[in-house]
Amino acid sequence: MNSFGTIFKVSIFGESHGVGVGVIIDGCPPGISLSKEDFIEDLRKRKSGTLGTTKRIEDDEPEFLSGIFKGKTTGAPITIFFKNKNIKSKDYDEFKNIPRPGHADFVAMKKYNNFNDYRGSGHFSGRLTLGLVAAGVIAKKIIKPICINAILIEVNGNKNIDEEIRRAIKLNDSVGGIVEVIGKNMMNGLGEPFFESVESKISSIIFSIPGIKGIEFGCGFNCTKMYGSQVNDAILNENGKTKTNNSGGINGGITNGNDLIFRVAVKPTSSISKIQETFNLKTKQMDNLQIKGRHDTCFALRVPVVLEAVTAIAITDFVLIKKGEE
Amino acid sequence: MNSFGTIFKVSIFGESHGVGVGVIIDGCPPGISLSKEDFIEDLRKRKSGTLGTTKRIEDDEPEFLSGIFKGKTTGAPITIFFKNKNIKSKDYDEFKNIPRPGHADFVAMKKYNNFNDYRGSGHFSGRLTLGLVAAGVIAKKIIKPICINAILIEVNGNKNIDEEIRRAIKLNDSVGGIVEVIGKNMMNGLGEPFFESVESKISSIIFSIPGIKGIEFGCGFNCTKMYGSQVNDAILNENGKTKTNNSGGINGGITNGNDLIFRVAVKPTSSISKIQETFNLKTKQMDNLQIKGRHDTCFALRVPVVLEAVTAIAITDFVLIKKGEE
Amino acid sequence: MNSFGTIFKVSIFGESHGVGVGVIIDGCPPGISLSKEDFIEDLRKRKSGTLGTTKRIEDDEPEFLSGIFKGKTTGAPITIFFKNKNIKSKDYDEFKNIPRPGHADFVAMKKYNNFNDYRGSGHFSGRLTLGLVAAGVIAKKIIKPICINAILIEVNGNKNIDEEIRRAIKLNDSVGGIVEVIGKNMMNGLGEPFFESVESKISSIIFSIPGIKGIEFGCGFNCTKMYGSQVNDAILNENGKTKTNNSGGINGGITNGNDLIFRVAVKPTSSISKIQETFNLKTKQMDNLQIKGRHDTCFALRVPVVLEAVTAIAITDFVLIKKGEE
Amino acid sequence: MNSFGTIFKVSIFGESHGVGVGVIIDGCPPGISLSKEDFIEDLRKRKSGTLGTTKRIEDDEPEFLSGIFKGKTTGAPITIFFKNKNIKSKDYDEFKNIPRPGHADFVAMKKYNNFNDYRGSGHFSGRLTLGLVAAGVIAKKIIKPICINAILIEVNGNKNIDEEIRRAIKLNDSVGGIVEVIGKNMMNGLGEPFFESVESKISSIIFSIPGIKGIEFGCGFNCTKMYGSQVNDAILNENGKTKTNNSGGINGGITNGNDLIFRVAVKPTSSISKIQETFNLKTKQMDNLQIKGRHDTCFALRVPVVLEAVTAIAITDFVLIKKGEE
Repeated sequence: MNSFGTIFKVSIFGESHGVGVGVIIDGCPPGISLSKEDFIEDLRKRKSGTLGTTKRIEDDEPEFLSGIFKGKTTGAPITIFFKNKNIKSKDYDEFKNIPRPGHADFVAMKKYNNFNDYRGSGHFSGRLTLGLVAAGVIAKKIIKPICINAILIEVNGNKNIDEEIRRAIKLNDSVGGIVEVIGKNMMNGLGEPFFESVESKISSIIFSIPGIKGIEFGCGFNCTKMYGSQVNDAILNENGKTKTNNSGGINGGITNGNDLIFRVAVKPTSSISKIQETFNLKTKQMDNLQIKGRHDTCFALRVPVVLEAVTAIAITDFVLIKKGEE
Repeated sequence: MNSFGTIFKVSIFGESHGVGVGVIIDGCPPGISLSKEDFIEDLRKRKSGTLGTTKRIEDDEPEFLSGIFKGKTTGAPITIFFKNKNIKSKDYDEFKNIPRPGHADFVAMKKYNNFNDYRGSGHFSGRLTLGLVAAGVIAKKIIKPICINAILIEVNGNKNIDEEIRRAIKLNDSVGGIVEVIGKNMMNGLGEPFFESVESKISSIIFSIPGIKGIEFGCGFNCTKMYGSQVNDAILNENGKTKTNNSGGINGGITNGNDLIFRVAVKPTSSISKIQETFNLKTKQMDNLQIKGRHDTCFALRVPVVLEAVTAIAITDFVLIKKGEE
Repeated sequence: MNSFGTIFKVSIFGESHGVGVGVIIDGCPPGISLSKEDFIEDLRKRKSGTLGTTKRIEDDEPEFLSGIFKGKTTGAPITIFFKNKNIKSKDYDEFKNIPRPGHADFVAMKKYNNFNDYRGSGHFSGRLTLGLVAAGVIAKKIIKPICINAILIEVNGNKNIDEEIRRAIKLNDSVGGIVEVIGKNMMNGLGEPFFESVESKISSIIFSIPGIKGIEFGCGFNCTKMYGSQVNDAILNENGKTKTNNSGGINGGITNGNDLIFRVAVKPTSSISKIQETFNLKTKQMDNLQIKGRHDTCFALRVPVVLEAVTAIAITDFVLIKKGEE
Repeated sequence: MNSFGTIFKVSIFGESHGVGVGVIIDGCPPGISLSKEDFIEDLRKRKSGTLGTTKRIEDDEPEFLSGIFKGKTTGAPITIFFKNKNIKSKDYDEFKNIPRPGHADFVAMKKYNNFNDYRGSGHFSGRLTLGLVAAGVIAKKIIKPICINAILIEVNGNKNIDEEIRRAIKLNDSVGGIVEVIGKNMMNGLGEPFFESVESKISSIIFSIPGIKGIEFGCGFNCTKMYGSQVNDAILNENGKTKTNNSGGINGGITNGNDLIFRVAVKPTSSISKIQETFNLKTKQMDNLQIKGRHDTCFALRVPVVLEAVTAIAITDFVLIKKGEE
């Protein structure tokens, strides 16, 4: 189902090589000022163009189709559309018969009985995250002073990111990395036991971003190597400020007012120009595949702003629900 | 919000030291045979009693309040209730003023304006997972031949689990661990891009279990230290069988028919008998806290069957949705 | 799907001749005082016992299974259960083969492949409305000073209700009627265009009550016989007070602050002791059916308090959503 | 909330005098052939141009923004957009201060703190139903052989529709009417007790169409003037065929396989050129208002195809859910 949220609802649509991609934001409060300029910075962060990112460069100019009037949100659904312009679809024709390893080609074919738009991964493309970034721009405005920051902290296990990117390019291969997301100025009381815990909702939307393989909150997997006395965060005052923050700002699925902290594992780009072995559905034999299209060496470079966006979207929904509870 | 699922809907309710805990399962297909015996094995796996688990032992006998007639499900909502019997509520009285580090005491107080039932963590108690296990028993029947298995593979970073438990008991401390979940005989095509990806839905329900701090699918966080050529799983035949399974059986958020694999980080029990420092809300000063109630040294020992249950619940919902799509 | 609402979620379960019937209320704000006494008046209004109502009399005592602590709601899901006590199931055995005209017997059999609990209409029984009335008691407290009143204004087209009841009893037949529901002290701004209009949500929950055949808001079907100049309600002041109230307090799906007004058509009870013709599924021939169980001559007598309850439930959800929007 | 449905999800967006209006259909099965030609007939039925309809004529050409590839649905969300072309926004400027009686002007202003797009009723415009009609075209294809037909059976209480239209035009006034909707070739077993009864879901989406004031199923309000023995539909054979169809094809909220029948009350157009009295928010006094824009004398003429569309949408969702249950 392609929508997320209870009060602040986000739906995305579109295909990589179709007319374009877009987003509908329903339940946005009225009166929030919104201009194309507001989107420039975050869209730029998501854009390709730097070392290790794809050569397909789109201008990514947002078109407002609904919900904005005289520079402000109206309370009605906001639709933002991004036309596709720089398309080379023939790059993808061969994948009809030779599903790329690590890609959605095979499952899309199966799930949709071969009716899927396979050009540039179609609806499964990372290009769909453009709508998420756009919704995130609005969400970030709503949740102020809460502020979400995501940083790529290592690539291929190395804090020297540039070094790893260069090495991967030389190898015609790709690399992944770990992104850390921090939420500052959090309020307590966000989240619902059990099925809408903060971790439930955030992980749910995080895993809708293509290529994410893991998430951990606070001390995460490391907490399995610590004693309870080390993991427990001592409370220091009436506001719930804690000495350490191994919980990542969440207890019992609810924010405790300390910083929200989590880390996300981003896999290496599946599309690589190195020759790979895979099954040819036409010849019914194993075959060699060399992917020639334009791809990121490390799409983890472009993911942080998407992670910020989806985190802000999830938190906006929590904030609006909490108001209803008060 | 305390319900999960689109077609197969599970809601849980109850408190640790109230009348009892329970579950409603809505959207269960009719005609599934169901007796109390069906629940014995999974409820036993969740039960305490062995080394490292709490001394509070409940008989955990399920009462069927609705939805079952002549030993079979009717298609109407199924309600299963577990009475609380072995309760010692005075163990918890002091936590009204001294919120336990690592616990939901503080956030529950804040979120619910001090109206929360604080006895035995109330609605936040791990005892609520009893309803999940009960729903899981039914879900496991529906998804056959798909079969979900969860195993605690290490505690405190050590594969010798017994050794770590004994050490923690000696230290009056607690330990966590990593559980691996494997789904066999999977079908392809489960899951929806983007917001109902398999990882989204599974992680969402996994994080509704108290004490989970991380989840990773397939090669998970390790994939950030591998090249794309190493992570990509070569497809070997028309059914999509892959040579390796670094994707954990999921591409583009959709099952590919290979085994579903993920690992979950379970934190050490927050309640420890070792003395801890925390804030006393009454005296407005830091205070020493020694928790005397009955607690697990390592509740990760009891979590695997809960993880099996929630995974089966999520997959059941996917399976029923997929039918609607065909 | 057996649950209703976005923030204030109500789910009902149970069977007429099973263990009992109940309700779960999720999303109820904490701190609302709640005792068994609060339920007495509304449950009594729904009860049978007076002329024209069934001889099956249940004590309808609510059991609180969760969500209430020290006489107040906690914020956790509230479960209220009503045990069935006065059951005569053999009254219903014959309907397995001879589905009663106007009843759910036939569709239940088909939909649930004969696995449905057919005793006393099972899950389709009007007894399930007990849970709605209980949830309504809580909802009415939340929405104060908004106040919902429902009155049976005519039976069998006659304002002399008693006269019609006596006549129907003499004829071994049943009668229906029209109930008018009025909401006083409404606020403006409740409701969402388009799919959660006030009329959408109210009609949706109204039609979940068995035996409702129609609903009309404001001047309703009569407006089709009036000119626009007669139907339009002139606005009289800044608060939106109108001269007439043909709109029933709703414009564009949103409350305008005037009284909410709608009328509901309640059909005659389907179970009558008069002999009826219908199909015998065993003999595969038409057959005579004389229903001998205990039934209402006019269940419209017992419906008003149920209508109040579901209206209050729908409005509570709107009120909590509106808070989130502000 | 601007989306409808559980599996087959429809969301609408846009404004009367903004860039355009549109619809997203999520959960549509793949492989359904779809061309612009498929939309011509239903869009034409909704169009103005005949006697009694507005002089604003739009070409209403659908643009496919996503979800269609090689003339077939792909399984991904389908976005259809209709550009606004024939706009005269200054017609509406005065309504900022003088809310039109019977219109959403006043509530929109209040609900959205004056940030609403008031031009041509903005998001509240009947123009939004264009998206519903488009979604209905697809829904009608999915539910075949089920076939939905809606007919305007009377206007101003008169079966001679033309006569009433001419009279109203002469009076500078407007008129409403009653539309009857019939579903043929229905299957049994659609609908869910209690909150997703067929009547619940259909009425819910029907009341999202602007200007609907009532709905009645089968014999509807008339059943309140009949005895149970008259209302009950005798079952005639194993398939559940009934002698009469007073239930409108629904028992216990579930379709019984007989024709689905319901009637809908459509109010007279609120915008009339006759002078009306209402409150001037600027002068804070009662004022005369003469509406000069282009409006339907009787929008009930254009509503039938919209009713067919939303009925088909609701039934499609039921059909897809039922598959999941089997």
